[in-house]
Amino acid sequence: MMGGGEPQSLQRTYSPQGICFGCGPANPQGLHVESRPDGEALVAVFRPGKHHEAFAGYVSGGIIGTLLDCHSNWTAAWTLMRAAGAATPPFTVTADYHVRLLRPAPSDGPLRLRATAVEVKADQRVVVEATLEAGGKLCATCRGTFVAVQPGHPAYQRW
Amino acid sequence: MMGGGEPQSLQRTYSPQGICFGCGPANPQGLHVESRPDGEALVAVFRPGKHHEAFAGYVSGGIIGTLLDCHSNWTAAWTLMRAAGAATPPFTVTADYHVRLLRPAPSDGPLRLRATAVEVKADQRVVVEATLEAGGKLCATCRGTFVAVQPGHPAYQRW
Repeated sequence: MMGGGEPQSLQRTYSPQGICFGCGPANPQGLHVESRPDGEALVAVFRPGKHHEAFAGYVSGGIIGTLLDCHSNWTAAWTLMRAAGAATPPFTVTADYHVRLLRPAPSDGPLRLRATAVEVKADQRVVVEATLEAGGKLCATCRGTFVAVQPGHPAYQRW
Repeated sequence: MMGGGEPQSLQRTYSPQGICFGCGPANPQGLHVESRPDGEALVAVFRPGKHHEAFAGYVSGGIIGTLLDCHSNWTAAWTLMRAAGAATPPFTVTADYHVRLLRPAPSDGPLRLRATAVEVKADQRVVVEATLEAGGKLCATCRGTFVAVQPGHPAYQRW
């Protein structure tokens, strides 16, 4: 029974030993993106530290891209898992991601991420669109392509 | 007299107190991108740590994007500085960046970055193309747009 709390994140459920800088629960210096389903989307909340800033008071665009990249990659893996009716997600990696920084994202409050798969291709490539909000304002968007890898790829069994 | 050593990086020259996660010399937890001129390009070398990985032996795509973003932003600032004949670079920020990950980048050796301005627009927007190599192989490319900000923007006087 879950009680009233949040469900466990996909990362802690499927990749508790993951070491990814962006989303690995087991990376002590990582960002620890924690993605959870919200209908057809995945959402995440990130609380930046001062060392994540680009300049005083605002989050680095590289950190923003890292959050959007990892959160979108999990959206792809989750989408493929659900489409296949599988018990665990496939091992996905980023093919490309395009970040648009619309306004500076303040570092003094939570950043809210939302991502949705917009296209699933026959070769297990998934196109994902994502947003990052702070203080109720849209600060960044991302569109990327993520792909499931096969045995022999170094990311196979990454989770 | 410089002796035979490398010239000081643009970051240490123009932004010694910079706190940017990607390129601020004064961020103790940052990546410390150090960009130096090589003809019409800027180059940088980054030595990843284990905590920068995405999975065992390979660097996170978010870290790769952060390196490319900061190095490209400095390429834009340096380009505008030279075009204006100015003594110091303008304060530039990222409008967008698009990272393509072509192959996994090994974490056991240096990553080599190179970036060039390919277009300078009238409103001080600079389009920059960049590459990231490891072990002599092209691992990632980036194309982004970077813009000089005016007084009143929170990034003004960021360096």
